[in-house]
Amino acid sequence: MVLTTTELDTIAAISTPPGEGGISIIRVSGEEALNVAEKLYRGKDISKVASNTINYGHIIDPESGEEVDEVMLSVMKAPRTYTMEDIIEINCHGGIVATNRILQLVLSNGARMAEPGEFTKRAFLNGRIDLSQSEAVMDLIEAKTDQSMKAAISQLDGNLSHLIRNLRQDILDVLAQVEVNIDYPEYDDVETMTSRLLRDKAVDVHARIDQLLKTAKQGKILRDGLATSIIGRPNVGKSSLLNHLLHEDKAIVTDIPGTTRDVLEEYVNVRGVPLKLIDTAGIRDTEDKVEKIGVDRSRKAIDSADLVLLVINASEPLTGEDRELIEKTSGKQRIVVLNKTDLPIKLDLEELKRLTGGKNMISTSAIEANGLQELEELIAKMFFEEGIENSQNNVMVTNARHIGLLNQANQSLNSVINGLDQGMPVDLVQIDMTHCWDLLGEITGDSYQDELIDQLFTQFCLGK
Amino acid sequence: MVLTTTELDTIAAISTPPGEGGISIIRVSGEEALNVAEKLYRGKDISKVASNTINYGHIIDPESGEEVDEVMLSVMKAPRTYTMEDIIEINCHGGIVATNRILQLVLSNGARMAEPGEFTKRAFLNGRIDLSQSEAVMDLIEAKTDQSMKAAISQLDGNLSHLIRNLRQDILDVLAQVEVNIDYPEYDDVETMTSRLLRDKAVDVHARIDQLLKTAKQGKILRDGLATSIIGRPNVGKSSLLNHLLHEDKAIVTDIPGTTRDVLEEYVNVRGVPLKLIDTAGIRDTEDKVEKIGVDRSRKAIDSADLVLLVINASEPLTGEDRELIEKTSGKQRIVVLNKTDLPIKLDLEELKRLTGGKNMISTSAIEANGLQELEELIAKMFFEEGIENSQNNVMVTNARHIGLLNQANQSLNSVINGLDQGMPVDLVQIDMTHCWDLLGEITGDSYQDELIDQLFTQFCLGK
Repeated sequence: MVLTTTELDTIAAISTPPGEGGISIIRVSGEEALNVAEKLYRGKDISKVASNTINYGHIIDPESGEEVDEVMLSVMKAPRTYTMEDIIEINCHGGIVATNRILQLVLSNGARMAEPGEFTKRAFLNGRIDLSQSEAVMDLIEAKTDQSMKAAISQLDGNLSHLIRNLRQDILDVLAQVEVNIDYPEYDDVETMTSRLLRDKAVDVHARIDQLLKTAKQGKILRDGLATSIIGRPNVGKSSLLNHLLHEDKAIVTDIPGTTRDVLEEYVNVRGVPLKLIDTAGIRDTEDKVEKIGVDRSRKAIDSADLVLLVINASEPLTGEDRELIEKTSGKQRIVVLNKTDLPIKLDLEELKRLTGGKNMISTSAIEANGLQELEELIAKMFFEEGIENSQNNVMVTNARHIGLLNQANQSLNSVINGLDQGMPVDLVQIDMTHCWDLLGEITGDSYQDELIDQLFTQFCLGK
Repeated sequence: MVLTTTELDTIAAISTPPGEGGISIIRVSGEEALNVAEKLYRGKDISKVASNTINYGHIIDPESGEEVDEVMLSVMKAPRTYTMEDIIEINCHGGIVATNRILQLVLSNGARMAEPGEFTKRAFLNGRIDLSQSEAVMDLIEAKTDQSMKAAISQLDGNLSHLIRNLRQDILDVLAQVEVNIDYPEYDDVETMTSRLLRDKAVDVHARIDQLLKTAKQGKILRDGLATSIIGRPNVGKSSLLNHLLHEDKAIVTDIPGTTRDVLEEYVNVRGVPLKLIDTAGIRDTEDKVEKIGVDRSRKAIDSADLVLLVINASEPLTGEDRELIEKTSGKQRIVVLNKTDLPIKLDLEELKRLTGGKNMISTSAIEANGLQELEELIAKMFFEEGIENSQNNVMVTNARHIGLLNQANQSLNSVINGLDQGMPVDLVQIDMTHCWDLLGEITGDSYQDELIDQLFTQFCLGK
């Protein structure tokens, strides 16, 4: 990728979350960063301060001479910085107006507004981190539980990259060997030998990718959350269950102005598993009132769920609506939550067991907070049978992009193996092997297209 | 104030606004700050790094040895810091989970959770800034327009404090002189002379306080916003007007989790005047539907307003409801917004002028965006006749607490003057003069009670 002028611009953004707080940071990166600081900062002589120092002073509007804020100015000189460029960070009193005013001054004195993720993009383009590490930066910011954070940190440290690079090196080695064999066919059986070399390596890499892909299901849950719907007819206790989940685990609500997301996403941390709750507004709005969840709405909630919590009132006989919901959720990962067990049971348990298969059933009393521990245990067990801790010792694949590329890489390897088995010439099979090498390179960013990079970083938040 | 153990604790909080962003900061202040860093930080040797440096490294959970995040650690050693104590700031990738996790580690390794405003409270208790400067820190964070920011910065720089201290010094000088005169009555007319001294000074200080209080009305608007209600019967165009105000000026919406406020406050910047819009939800909810603003609700909106924008539909004759609203808002600062002037006028303008007094009337067409500039100009002119810029050259009083104390101080001065005029003995009058000196000291915090301090700082945001 050739660096264009745009990529040499000095860029700036507010790097702290939007809102009022004790400190806000305006980050500036690029060749002009120190010049920008010199124009706006009154305090020490910026040209003389050492790298990695924090300097007290004021931001002044150079036009009016007016004092805008009292600040601490961090100076970090290239190349040992986040972007590998000169960086200044203006730490100011965290108000909305003052912070924006300082950003405006920075923008009118030599910097342009950074795009979302552009600082990290530069860290990648300048070679400090690779692509999967860049992605881990964002995963870390968006992590919903300790476990998802751990997976992100491991990826940020380059553990996944290391493994991918090993695979690529092995492929490259065998491709080189094949090249040599073809160029110097001093032995008669060179074709056979080369085929075997290739085939063995293809099988070996395939197995190692399979191993990696085994972590993908859990990895994806850790990164993106387990989409969970709470389903049930009116007044069975959905909102009580919801409140218990939310309260016990202090839900993380993400609703970030300035990012591309515009829906409120609610996550609860259930023993390290981030549950992403679907349509809780619906539950809140309608429960305890005249409840009218349309058929369409409840079907959507079921369809988009990885896990359905089907709540049934044990103190009443099963209704037609219950039976309908049981049937509709039968193809799903489902937990039947038998609620209101503090009241006399009027439900035909045998029938319920017959209809649901009797699996994954939990008795609860949301009012007395019974059974909630068991519910959480069951959720964790359903998706992390051997526990999350164990899977953490190894590298995890968490990112849908990586999973897709690994699957494609395996398809190429299958083509290699099948091709050889069907007696295709080695130089044709080589193409598939090289393709596999390329695909793996897209994970680390060793091979990539500009559009991929552009598209990928726009998903970042501003100021990162 | 005697420092208690609590005030010697090492304290910690997340100092950046809550939410996801590029950078979050965990700030730690106190004697143990560097020890806390040594326990959690893996990178350079903290005991050897210079003050005011930024150090790359990782935060490690000391129990499990697990890596929690990649960070930049700022080290600022006492006494030249925000709190005048040792401070470390952990700048981490700005996720919610990682940030909270690091805070937890800090709290379990020698620090306790800071109270709201406690860092700034320490800056005050340790003598770096005075009380009105501390208050300015929060005003700066909450500033709604450039103008409010300027007023806060001026106060933070100590301009108000300087003026108050001058007043106090003058009072102290005259009190000392009185003391001398009483103790050494070598002249016969000492009583008369002393009385005149006291009276002259009381009159002088009173006049200077009056001067200061003249800025209070505008200062308070700049700090707290001008409470503004948009009033009118259904379908006159209230929500269009609202949208125009909001869009044109990019409303600042404050809704901060973790602070004491729980209502959504919307501000628009009208030529530097922060309008604090009242009950906009009501307008949004009801306009264009069957609108039912209850009598009670509209009366409340009128009562709590500093400024009423009364919207009247020019394309229809005045209704009884219009007349009622005109009457109800007659005692208020009011602008009559004659809307829908793009349509044929069917309203009896003469009647309207008679009813409203004809003052402060603006013709608009919200649909064609006509008249909105004029509306903004009128608002600015009504409250800042000579322009905001001019008033900024001088010190402004913006804070209700300060305004209250200045008024009380003037009352004490009145007692001094009246007492002397009525021939009260000097040593009795002295008490009132001393009281005035004390009251002024409460503005800067030179004289204060613990409860005041505690109550005042709890209004701060966390991490400041």
